[in-house]
Amino acid sequence: MIRPFLLLQLTALIPAAAIAQSTPIADSYRATANRIIAAALADSSAWNRTAELVDRFGHRLSGSASLERSIDWILAAMRRDGLQNVRGEPVMVPRWVRGAESATLVSPRAAPLTMIGLGRSAGTPARGITAQVLVVDSFEDLTRRAAEAKGKIVLFDVPFTGYGQTVRYRSRGAIEAAKVGAVAALIRSVSSESMQNPHTGSLGYDSAVAKIPAAALSVEDAAMLHRMADRGDRVVVNLKMSARTLPDVQSRNVVAEIVGSEKPDEIVVLGGHIDSWDVGQGAMDDAGGSVAAWEAVRVMKRLGLRPKRTVRVVLWTNEENGLRGADGYRDAHRSEIGKHVMALESDNGVFKPRGVGVTAGEGGLAMVTDIASLLAPIGATTATAGGGGADVGPLGALGVPTMSPSVDGTRYFWYHHSSADTMDKLDPREVAECVALMAVFAYVIADMPGTLPRTPPRQPTS
Amino acid sequence: MIRPFLLLQLTALIPAAAIAQSTPIADSYRATANRIIAAALADSSAWNRTAELVDRFGHRLSGSASLERSIDWILAAMRRDGLQNVRGEPVMVPRWVRGAESATLVSPRAAPLTMIGLGRSAGTPARGITAQVLVVDSFEDLTRRAAEAKGKIVLFDVPFTGYGQTVRYRSRGAIEAAKVGAVAALIRSVSSESMQNPHTGSLGYDSAVAKIPAAALSVEDAAMLHRMADRGDRVVVNLKMSARTLPDVQSRNVVAEIVGSEKPDEIVVLGGHIDSWDVGQGAMDDAGGSVAAWEAVRVMKRLGLRPKRTVRVVLWTNEENGLRGADGYRDAHRSEIGKHVMALESDNGVFKPRGVGVTAGEGGLAMVTDIASLLAPIGATTATAGGGGADVGPLGALGVPTMSPSVDGTRYFWYHHSSADTMDKLDPREVAECVALMAVFAYVIADMPGTLPRTPPRQPTS
Repeated sequence: MIRPFLLLQLTALIPAAAIAQSTPIADSYRATANRIIAAALADSSAWNRTAELVDRFGHRLSGSASLERSIDWILAAMRRDGLQNVRGEPVMVPRWVRGAESATLVSPRAAPLTMIGLGRSAGTPARGITAQVLVVDSFEDLTRRAAEAKGKIVLFDVPFTGYGQTVRYRSRGAIEAAKVGAVAALIRSVSSESMQNPHTGSLGYDSAVAKIPAAALSVEDAAMLHRMADRGDRVVVNLKMSARTLPDVQSRNVVAEIVGSEKPDEIVVLGGHIDSWDVGQGAMDDAGGSVAAWEAVRVMKRLGLRPKRTVRVVLWTNEENGLRGADGYRDAHRSEIGKHVMALESDNGVFKPRGVGVTAGEGGLAMVTDIASLLAPIGATTATAGGGGADVGPLGALGVPTMSPSVDGTRYFWYHHSSADTMDKLDPREVAECVALMAVFAYVIADMPGTLPRTPPRQPTS
Repeated sequence: MIRPFLLLQLTALIPAAAIAQSTPIADSYRATANRIIAAALADSSAWNRTAELVDRFGHRLSGSASLERSIDWILAAMRRDGLQNVRGEPVMVPRWVRGAESATLVSPRAAPLTMIGLGRSAGTPARGITAQVLVVDSFEDLTRRAAEAKGKIVLFDVPFTGYGQTVRYRSRGAIEAAKVGAVAALIRSVSSESMQNPHTGSLGYDSAVAKIPAAALSVEDAAMLHRMADRGDRVVVNLKMSARTLPDVQSRNVVAEIVGSEKPDEIVVLGGHIDSWDVGQGAMDDAGGSVAAWEAVRVMKRLGLRPKRTVRVVLWTNEENGLRGADGYRDAHRSEIGKHVMALESDNGVFKPRGVGVTAGEGGLAMVTDIASLLAPIGATTATAGGGGADVGPLGALGVPTMSPSVDGTRYFWYHHSSADTMDKLDPREVAECVALMAVFAYVIADMPGTLPRTPPRQPTS
């Protein structure tokens, strides 16, 4: 085989005019990228491994035995794969436990409702909270009707207009409802399509107001209560949640490497988060991203590719309800963050990839656009400004260029944080394409002569 | 207003060449059809009434109080609407009661499974049935592996390739599994898309073999068990079902009319079925079809349209698990079936209508194609051979021409017989278009000079 390093040297001797529209980076790595892509697409090993992980252990909420068993299994498999420096790095994580929960329509008729408590929510008294429901369709609507809210359960029945816009009601619904005297908060599940699968996710509390229990109703049941209220029916609901927060417990970030051949102290990070919500299988969010990152280095290993810099897989723990893994990784590796040349996280689902997003300093997007041309065989050549993920946020805040695969997001919010996030939603070929994309970017950026320009330090965004 | 009858007479005087591409029926009724369509589309009353019905009473399984309360409410409203001969015609119906039920994965790990018992299924002992699962993907696969089935739970994990093909596993799965010694049967839900909403529906039993309990798993969980079995895991499930069949109880077919002005003994029937499965709201299946038929006559009434023949709305009871309403209607009206000129049932969901299907004697399709041209304002002009529904099947078998709206069926089997068949899945404009279509066909066929040719008597198909 021709070493990419040699290819690069040869390319450098070719006059600029002969290279035509391409720049040196992509041309130097095309043959290697093609081998990586072919190897990634050769079988369904990434899909199979993801399936085995989620079928064996189920969902993986922080603090659960299934999360720690999953981590044990991955660490053992990574060692068998021959990866280097395989380890679990200890992180203390929150332990929120859902327990039994229900919502029951009491008036205008008796019927069970389809609900799921929001992560980090307080529980209710054992007999539940029974109260009239005030249905509002926005924070502004709640403000207008604030005088009616005291002693009621506020239901935010807000149409999904995009995650960023709509998730505010999950994040701040309990706070805003408590401010006007509500005893509990309900939201319409944050989802773009529903088949009675309610969606959980973390809520926020404000220490200045009461921490009232909060849950998501299915889109269907939120709409029904809204129609009843619009008809003038007195809507009364009993909400029971035995949710509680126990003392923090230890979890681990999974770390494994291919140590660089020439600059082993310079690091390219690629990964996903290994924890999930406590429903479904957390297949899309984010077993798939985690395994894709792991498989990306395994493809390199299988091909005998060892880049100049170190490629490090990191599977963060506790992304969903605390980001302790992300913060813990930053804190444990603070002395080497200046040597992190890029951090790539897959947490948007391992669906059909279209390219990547990147957050880097001036000129970084152009370099990534060039590298993305290597993904032409799978049609994933787009590069757009803005990339990263919740777990690489703390690194990005310290100047590390961050990236994320751009994937077909059509169905992401159908399944997100619900029982429907299961293995059957992932396609083996699409997962393999995500592996190919992650492997090509990680390899090239770990091996190329220069590095992506860093960003000025900033506040982390996730 | 110009009476359609006069229009028809005038048209008959115009030389054939002047009529160009149209035939007499459609031209005679165009103005009236346009008024009907405009009235049907003028508001969301059909959607609103359907919503009020399903929100007020919920699902409506035969033998339930909610079904009978729904019927009471409809009868009262029909009387207020000023319809004629409003009545509930008694029908004895089965009373199958689901009771508590669950399926739990015991091995290779403990986890709840998402399931729903199949209608008419026998129950299990109170402690449930715990047995190893044999996963097969077809009846042929079961035949090949028959020697392995004894004492096991057979899971038919069959991909959805169309309702007619795939529903065989719901209908005959328990029979075929019992034949080879299985103790229970599970099926993958019969559905084209899933978000952990399992789908029920009636099973069949054969008196020659044991009546073993049978349930549907969610598509997700059936796939998971299949993957586990393929990996060589020993899959063990505990199935608990307290389902039981109680003595028959009385229900009613809802009947209401606009009595014909000239031939009141000749009858056009239009309707849907008022019962549903005991999950979700039965909004699409078939509160929507029932209300659309009812609204269709209400539109005629509002416009002061009284056709020559009688238009009769029939909302059949017990379509889902017995067809007793359909048989009961035929038996109660046996003496006048020769005077039924057409029976139209909407039971494919009140989605965007494209036209109609018709089963009639020679020449009937051409007449219906002609009438369908009146639906051009809503783009529902297709007429295809083959139309009807389970409830008009017994009439069709006796020679009555039967019809059904052809609607966009893309999502029908996403929601069918599951908790996701709820009001939010229906669009007010699409429901109104279904009303327009049913009203135009019912009116024209009840008023036109001739009648659709009857079919030779045959075995009912549903």
